[in-house]
Amino acid sequence: MVYIEIIGFAAGTLTTVCLVPQVLKAWKTKLTRDVSLVWVVTLTIGVVLWLAYGILINSLPIIVANFFTLILSLIILLLKLKYK
Amino acid sequence: MVYIEIIGFAAGTLTTVCLVPQVLKAWKTKLTRDVSLVWVVTLTIGVVLWLAYGILINSLPIIVANFFTLILSLIILLLKLKYK
Repeated sequence: MVYIEIIGFAAGTLTTVCLVPQVLKAWKTKLTRDVSLVWVVTLTIGVVLWLAYGILINSLPIIVANFFTLILSLIILLLKLKYK
Repeated sequence: MVYIEIIGFAAGTLTTVCLVPQVLKAWKTKLTRDVSLVWVVTLTIGVVLWLAYGILINSLPIIVANFFTLILSLIILLLKLKYK
């Protein structure tokens, strides 16, 4: 069982880390013109649902990965709304 | 149990659909200058690991969502390598 969790956490780390450059870029430049609002809203809702799914099936990798992804997508959403 | 699967499939649909505009844009314009190679490689490896995790914990929503996400990220990767 342990190696399954490790694969899940590795997966979650990689797909969460993917968003970091976008957050840093929007944060530094205060420009989000080319960031699609539809994209960030869709992503945020999707991540909330993954979080719910992870809690329901009791999968720690899904919960942890989507918790951090949610924080990042909310930051992008807030920056998008602030600096549109 | 059924509503849990529905939440999982809804989550998977939203987070997979997020990638479609990027694929269409790269496909149409044949330009991927502003698409980060590190991003698409990281995403692809992460999605492969999610797929493995989904198979190991026997979660159909994770398997289906990441199967389609993998196809999309591979298309972006191929376009990136072809039109860099």
